[in-house]
Amino acid sequence: MTELGQISGVLLDIDGVLYAGGRAIEGGRETVAWLESEGIPFRCVSNTTSRSRRSIAARLRALDYDIHESLIFNPPLAAIRHLRGKKTFLLTQGDVRDDFLAADIPLVEEGAEAVVVGDAGNGFTYEAMNRAFRMALEGAGIVALEKDRYWMGADGLMLSAGPFVAALEYATGSEAVVVGKPSSEFFRLALEDMGAEPSEALMVGDDLRTDIGGAQAAGMRTALVRTGKFRQEVFETSRIRPDLLLPSIAGLPRAMRGIFI
Amino acid sequence: MTELGQISGVLLDIDGVLYAGGRAIEGGRETVAWLESEGIPFRCVSNTTSRSRRSIAARLRALDYDIHESLIFNPPLAAIRHLRGKKTFLLTQGDVRDDFLAADIPLVEEGAEAVVVGDAGNGFTYEAMNRAFRMALEGAGIVALEKDRYWMGADGLMLSAGPFVAALEYATGSEAVVVGKPSSEFFRLALEDMGAEPSEALMVGDDLRTDIGGAQAAGMRTALVRTGKFRQEVFETSRIRPDLLLPSIAGLPRAMRGIFI
Repeated sequence: MTELGQISGVLLDIDGVLYAGGRAIEGGRETVAWLESEGIPFRCVSNTTSRSRRSIAARLRALDYDIHESLIFNPPLAAIRHLRGKKTFLLTQGDVRDDFLAADIPLVEEGAEAVVVGDAGNGFTYEAMNRAFRMALEGAGIVALEKDRYWMGADGLMLSAGPFVAALEYATGSEAVVVGKPSSEFFRLALEDMGAEPSEALMVGDDLRTDIGGAQAAGMRTALVRTGKFRQEVFETSRIRPDLLLPSIAGLPRAMRGIFI
Repeated sequence: MTELGQISGVLLDIDGVLYAGGRAIEGGRETVAWLESEGIPFRCVSNTTSRSRRSIAARLRALDYDIHESLIFNPPLAAIRHLRGKKTFLLTQGDVRDDFLAADIPLVEEGAEAVVVGDAGNGFTYEAMNRAFRMALEGAGIVALEKDRYWMGADGLMLSAGPFVAALEYATGSEAVVVGKPSSEFFRLALEDMGAEPSEALMVGDDLRTDIGGAQAAGMRTALVRTGKFRQEVFETSRIRPDLLLPSIAGLPRAMRGIFI
């Protein structure tokens, strides 16, 4: 049993927790409002590497979530915190570039101190990979926004950033720093963003491995919701056990009162 | 001491052994003629993955080496022997495709049973990588013509096939079969091509690791030449020791008579 006062911050996964299948999860808005009214700091976390914080906030707004973009924490922001102003070669797609520009990260095409790799899709040309490789061999650190293998596209499976990160690792003989979920670095930086200690923070997610397993490895408390990609058989066969198992995010306020007070 | 009669086949590396820096090694042609006159089966082996056997033979002919293309053994041919007629998706560049067509390998763009990866250069697009990945995930074996990290191009280092093979391995969780040097499979298939047993065959090369180390791992005898990429300091600091150390291929006939008879 834990006092509510000891929970000094909450991380809410977005896809599968706040919405799923293009629709807001019932009770999600009320839970966000409750966190605000209780004065409990929170961040909405996403693992997408091809959309800026502004895009993610706009997507939430379209579903009637009134969440300011400063409350969105994504792998690009984790990378930005990790980079600390280093000259960066960006291998990504979409408007994620905006996040780096907004943070005044100098984006360069040569002589970079860091190579940041996200899901660049068709941007993964031989020329771009070779450019990234040369800079990494000359000492630029490889920062991976994610290291997933693939994702399900409209017409079939699509390669994620992971294989291309693995290619650069093989070519250079050096290891990338992964700043997306489930890396501890992601959770550490997200908590740092709101000044919360891992032991007093709660991660709410729908993915047993990346959300719950990742947050536990970072020393956080965890709540698994039965929405989004939650699957009973995965839950039953896994060794990963969350502190809380909730039907949905709607049950969070009651659970936090009931269990933690 | 070994009888000459026990050497039932010789593999001659091409670049660095038969020629170097665009010029034929002195005495090379005489050594090839001697092997032919003695009736000792031999193959000229190359690790290039972007030129067909015909192209390689033409290059040798331009340097006055009269070596028929059927005596050239390269990674594409090793792959062809390994494939045994399987439907193949080819991720390569240059005229190496001709070797596969000449061997009646069915080359397909979908539904392949094998994905063959060479140095495809600008052919390593996201679309091509994704295509290879999907087929590999559906069961096609990944066959790597080589797994080198990079090579020195005209304006700097260039990624070789290795990193892209590593990307497909990471994406699929399966391991590629490497059929180029220094894999034992390459030497085994080259010897099979002339009906020689490894223990009675000699590899002549200029690269301590891929030629000598690779051939020794395949159970062959070895001769290192001091031409091509031979470097004294590499030789002195390596644990790999060839059976013979020759100034150049010119010394092979005398060495084989003197040492093996």
